[in-house]
Amino acid sequence: MEIKTYLIEQRQVVEDALLRLTPEATGPFARHIEAMRYSLFVGGKRIRPILCLAAGAAISESAESRSNLLPVACALECIHTYSLIHDDLPAMDDDALRRGKPTNHMLFGEAGAILAGDSLLTWAFDLLTNPEQSSLSAAQQLAITHIIARASGPLGMAGGQSLDIACENKVFPFETLQTIHRSKTGALITCAVQAGAIGAGASAQQTEDLVHYGNQIGLAFQIVDDLLNATSSTTELGKAAGSDAVHGKATYPAYFGIEGTRARAHDAVEAAKTALKGFDEKAEPLRMLADYIYTRTS
Amino acid sequence: MEIKTYLIEQRQVVEDALLRLTPEATGPFARHIEAMRYSLFVGGKRIRPILCLAAGAAISESAESRSNLLPVACALECIHTYSLIHDDLPAMDDDALRRGKPTNHMLFGEAGAILAGDSLLTWAFDLLTNPEQSSLSAAQQLAITHIIARASGPLGMAGGQSLDIACENKVFPFETLQTIHRSKTGALITCAVQAGAIGAGASAQQTEDLVHYGNQIGLAFQIVDDLLNATSSTTELGKAAGSDAVHGKATYPAYFGIEGTRARAHDAVEAAKTALKGFDEKAEPLRMLADYIYTRTS
Repeated sequence: MEIKTYLIEQRQVVEDALLRLTPEATGPFARHIEAMRYSLFVGGKRIRPILCLAAGAAISESAESRSNLLPVACALECIHTYSLIHDDLPAMDDDALRRGKPTNHMLFGEAGAILAGDSLLTWAFDLLTNPEQSSLSAAQQLAITHIIARASGPLGMAGGQSLDIACENKVFPFETLQTIHRSKTGALITCAVQAGAIGAGASAQQTEDLVHYGNQIGLAFQIVDDLLNATSSTTELGKAAGSDAVHGKATYPAYFGIEGTRARAHDAVEAAKTALKGFDEKAEPLRMLADYIYTRTS
Repeated sequence: MEIKTYLIEQRQVVEDALLRLTPEATGPFARHIEAMRYSLFVGGKRIRPILCLAAGAAISESAESRSNLLPVACALECIHTYSLIHDDLPAMDDDALRRGKPTNHMLFGEAGAILAGDSLLTWAFDLLTNPEQSSLSAAQQLAITHIIARASGPLGMAGGQSLDIACENKVFPFETLQTIHRSKTGALITCAVQAGAIGAGASAQQTEDLVHYGNQIGLAFQIVDDLLNATSSTTELGKAAGSDAVHGKATYPAYFGIEGTRARAHDAVEAAKTALKGFDEKAEPLRMLADYIYTRTS
């Protein structure tokens, strides 16, 4: 199967599940839930949920395993979406466009957007711990929820975002950039893969290999994000291009130039694929996804 | 034991646990963690964690049960604190004072405060699902985490806050005020009690009684909050008194007057104590807490 067809199919799977597993915009909180759903369904590559499902499928292709991972995949997308809503706020990156559409606060106001983000984050944990959505053991659900909480919080994504903001317009060592990337973007991508592994019953060795794969594609993903921000147009990206430079953010191109940065992304993708050498053809989607992350244009 | 002594002792227990179970403000995210810790340790009645521990103690006074509930109690306080930080933001209630001290965004900026809230919320779920902090079964931990997520998210606290904001300066039926109170304040208080019950191994009947108790004191708590906001000074409250009127918020006194409101709070407290009639002297702290909620002055 081609990566394009695969991504279209998988996005549909994720979006069908998101529709089913998000509260409906009715009742007293209708407007609030509408704000959550707006950002959740405004588009997006669905990379984290797809990685989670692909990691699970690399271990087991059973329908039960796949179905068990759908709430996990949706929770990851809820957390990613919450982080975008809060990052776009006037007090943070102050972006008016995201995925070619108005950002959440442009439509629902700042208070509405803050609360929509809060609720998407909280709903992720509701989904992850819902005993009715899954035949996973309580121990598996708990383990998955814990790694996702750790990856998203003060020692992961939220910590990384705060460090990113604190470093705007400042000169800092490359190690700090690595810390920002690893925590702000890498942690959730790695844990998407790890959660898929745990949910599909991977062995300790398989989980370790998949975590290594996740670390490398998380790195590649962020490097390519930096590249695209530096080299694409706003129309191509669907969000403000060149905004890193405007915000005085240090990025890979600032340290290594465009070509040096491209080489590093390529190395990370190759390392990711090498981590999968013990896996059979069920891991083919993960290999294709690694290549896609390198070649994507938005 | 007198309620005053009891509360001082219990607050110390909660604060010792919070100190132990919150990340230290060191490393690359030190400033971010400092913002979390500032609001967490700036004071507060610690009502939700104390209710959780008291509900557990009404079932079992064993040291193990108590120790198992400490991370749950801390998680509840993290969620409560996150909600205060976000409620105080300029885009929401725009409050400069909380517990007699500057609000989070006054010290750490809006972006810092939004992220500190996000991380406190996420850290709550990290604590709740940490297998090392507890000898509870995975099923118990999962059940507790799920009710807390449900009570805090779009169908609970965050939904209630968004409805509260949407209703500012509007005339709406008393049923809407009840929905706001039940979701914004009541849900987390009830689930604090319910979580304590589950963690201590309560029977279905005991849990049902404790949930009924929780519903009634949640109601009493919010009614008394409305009363205090209408009748106290800013110095007494440690936050802006009369702010409900300023924000055009409908409250119990607006519907029932001061005396009518007081009577309703009293009725709720009596109903809460009645719900405990099947419990022995281990539930005495819960009974005292019900009275305290009615008589508190801040």
